[in-house]
Amino acid sequence: MSKSVNLLRSFFDRMDTVFFDAYGTLFDVSGVATACAAVCSRPDAFVAGWRRRQLEYSWLRSLMGRYVDFEQVSADALAATADAERVELDEEARRQFLAAWLRPAAFPDVPCALDDLSQHSRVGSRLGILSNGSPAMLATVLEHTDLSNRFRWVLSVDAVKVYKPSPAVYGLAVQASGSPRERILFVSSNAWDIAGAAAFGLRTCWLNRAGATSERLGAAPDHVISTLANIAELLG
Amino acid sequence: MSKSVNLLRSFFDRMDTVFFDAYGTLFDVSGVATACAAVCSRPDAFVAGWRRRQLEYSWLRSLMGRYVDFEQVSADALAATADAERVELDEEARRQFLAAWLRPAAFPDVPCALDDLSQHSRVGSRLGILSNGSPAMLATVLEHTDLSNRFRWVLSVDAVKVYKPSPAVYGLAVQASGSPRERILFVSSNAWDIAGAAAFGLRTCWLNRAGATSERLGAAPDHVISTLANIAELLG
Repeated sequence: MSKSVNLLRSFFDRMDTVFFDAYGTLFDVSGVATACAAVCSRPDAFVAGWRRRQLEYSWLRSLMGRYVDFEQVSADALAATADAERVELDEEARRQFLAAWLRPAAFPDVPCALDDLSQHSRVGSRLGILSNGSPAMLATVLEHTDLSNRFRWVLSVDAVKVYKPSPAVYGLAVQASGSPRERILFVSSNAWDIAGAAAFGLRTCWLNRAGATSERLGAAPDHVISTLANIAELLG
Repeated sequence: MSKSVNLLRSFFDRMDTVFFDAYGTLFDVSGVATACAAVCSRPDAFVAGWRRRQLEYSWLRSLMGRYVDFEQVSADALAATADAERVELDEEARRQFLAAWLRPAAFPDVPCALDDLSQHSRVGSRLGILSNGSPAMLATVLEHTDLSNRFRWVLSVDAVKVYKPSPAVYGLAVQASGSPRERILFVSSNAWDIAGAAAFGLRTCWLNRAGATSERLGAAPDHVISTLANIAELLG
């Protein structure tokens, strides 16, 4: 075994709890574009704009101290994106778009990775979700993907009324699990979410599904993977 | 005089202080694309991406509690945008890009609008800037545009180490001017900046230079204009 692998092993050897981001990490929201294709001439661009506004609104409202839950943020971002893109959305289309967001599929690598982790000697059932999604949204997607019984903790930012990457959000994982922050591995597909978790003091693994380049937010991920397939091995 | 004009007059009659956002509102940063044209095949897209990242980084770092000043945010955002767009930037190009940001021109309607306001009976010299820019950046652009002596207050978020739209930033205008928030008119070309100021309780005028559609952040502007030309008349 090489020295670098040894160092990596000894680092991850200390983790006893794993928290996952939800949308884009466990759940594939790219299918939302399909629901939009009937109304938009450029569904991918429309959904990318909607997604960007969702995040921007979550950050802006957090900074303004004007939290509303993620269903409302999504609806507001959808309406503003439709205005900006000059797309007419009737009530039925609006409902369909928002419903598509509630029922994404799990990425194909998720069930197997959760199986592997649940058999891991240290981690076992100490698995959680830490998400911007509202409690109702998370309950819906977990039921829809048949993953409800895989997570001991399903934590929503709604408990602290502020969005990621506020430290108050990552603190929820410590409070719920009882593990110190340096024993919690946080996995997210969003580089900015990883930076927030690292700034708070969690251990981080950036699941770079899209092959994106790094962001420069002053906090690098501890590790980068492109699929969840080998995450249990990573933990030693 | 119509009833609506009367209502508008009586509303703006109470203002005795005007604060302006700087970049995009008083100063035209679109010239930055010219500086990028030598290196990028798509300078407008590159600068738009850089500008978006600048703002995103300012929001994310504020939420993370990891403030660095706007020169650093700009440099980080530039490096990440170059990575993402696969543009090679040598040290000289990087310096030129950042320097272009420091020396934008004033929009053509600015000097005349400031003249008009300075002769306004209530407002007079009670004019200020409230900006994300660092104190050094603001000093440079004011000298470059020969507008240094037009503002009684030049306020940077650097005083509170958090970016717009945090209420702490808009509070700086109240503290510096001594005017209550409902007597301060805040003018910005950014809809999200207007939403933050309105949420804090300032009176707001969205200078919608680009003809953008509205954002949905729960706080509408009190008034919308497309140029600064008639701002003094607006104040009655």
